[in-house]
Amino acid sequence: TVCSWNGRMPAEDATFKNAMRLLASGVTIVATKHAGERSGLTATAVCSLALSPPRLLACVNMTGHSYGLLANGRCMSVNLLAEDHTELARRFAAKRATTDEDRFKTGDWRERVTGAPLLADALAAFDCRITQILPLDTHAILIGTVEDVLFGPKRAPLVHFDSSYRSLLSMLSEIQT
Amino acid sequence: TVCSWNGRMPAEDATFKNAMRLLASGVTIVATKHAGERSGLTATAVCSLALSPPRLLACVNMTGHSYGLLANGRCMSVNLLAEDHTELARRFAAKRATTDEDRFKTGDWRERVTGAPLLADALAAFDCRITQILPLDTHAILIGTVEDVLFGPKRAPLVHFDSSYRSLLSMLSEIQT
Repeated sequence: TVCSWNGRMPAEDATFKNAMRLLASGVTIVATKHAGERSGLTATAVCSLALSPPRLLACVNMTGHSYGLLANGRCMSVNLLAEDHTELARRFAAKRATTDEDRFKTGDWRERVTGAPLLADALAAFDCRITQILPLDTHAILIGTVEDVLFGPKRAPLVHFDSSYRSLLSMLSEIQT
Repeated sequence: TVCSWNGRMPAEDATFKNAMRLLASGVTIVATKHAGERSGLTATAVCSLALSPPRLLACVNMTGHSYGLLANGRCMSVNLLAEDHTELARRFAAKRATTDEDRFKTGDWRERVTGAPLLADALAAFDCRITQILPLDTHAILIGTVEDVLFGPKRAPLVHFDSSYRSLLSMLSEIQT
C-alpha cells in the first residue's frame, strides 16, 4: 500500500510557521557580488548536500534584492556565524535601505576564488560557484559547488531557535580543548 | 563583471567536511512507511522552503535503505527532536541491522494523514507528501508538502555541532514563560 492522504488542504500557514520556529538552525550570511555590487542576507535555510564534489544548498527568497545578483553572478559565499556575530546577523536580516553596501561596513570581508565576499572571522566561510538554481514558488534552492573554504577562530556557533538568537550550552570548554 | 574563478579544483573533501561540522543544525528523524514497512534515519540537512503551500526539504543519501521507501511511498515525516531525544537520535543514526522496524520500538509513533510515522513527543512533527525528488550525485533533495503538523511538549531542541549533540544555553527559562 502506498501512503495515503485524505485530500485535506495542506497544513495552515500559521501552524506551519509556529512549527518551523522549533527547527533549530545555525545562522549564516549568504553573500554575493555581481557587476561590482555586493549584496547579502541572513539565512538559516542552508545545508550540506554532497561530498564529491563538495556541495551545499541555500534557500533564498526570489523577491529579495540579493536573488537577482546571485542568479546573474552565479557565485555565493556562505558564512557560518559565531555567537559573537549577533549584530551582524541582525544587520543582514533587516529590511534593505537604498543599497546593501552599507551592510558590509562591519566585518572583515575578503575575496578568494569566485569574487563573493567572505567573512574572515566566520567559523567557516564557503566560497561557492552556483551550479544549479531550482525555483519553487517563492523561494529558490541554490546549489553551490565549494571552490574554497576559509576558517576563522573556532568558537561557539550562533543558533536560531523559536524566533531568537541563542548560544550552545557548555560549548566553550569543549571547543577550547 | 561576472564573478570569476581560477579554474582550481573544488575544495578538498576533508577541508569541506571539517568546515561543514561547524554548521550547527537541529536534529530530526525523517521517517516513512511503504508497503507496510517503516524506515527512518537521523537527518540534520532539513530546512524550511516556502509558506504557501507549506513546504520543507530534506537531503537524503540515495544509497541508504530508507531512500527506496521514500521514493516509492512518496510520504515522509520530519520529526524535530528535543534535547531529551539523544538516544533516539543515535538509534536512527546507527548502521541498520536486518530491519528498521526495531528502531521504532522506542518512542510513541503515530500515523495521521500520509501514513508516515510521527513521533508524538517531538517538538513538532511534519507529516508530508513528497511532491518532488531532485537527485544530485549521492544525495537527493526531497521536497515535502506539509499535510499535517503534530506538536509535542515545548522544550529545548537537540542541536548537532562539531560532531556531537548539544543543548542550547539558558533555553528552558525562556521556553517556560
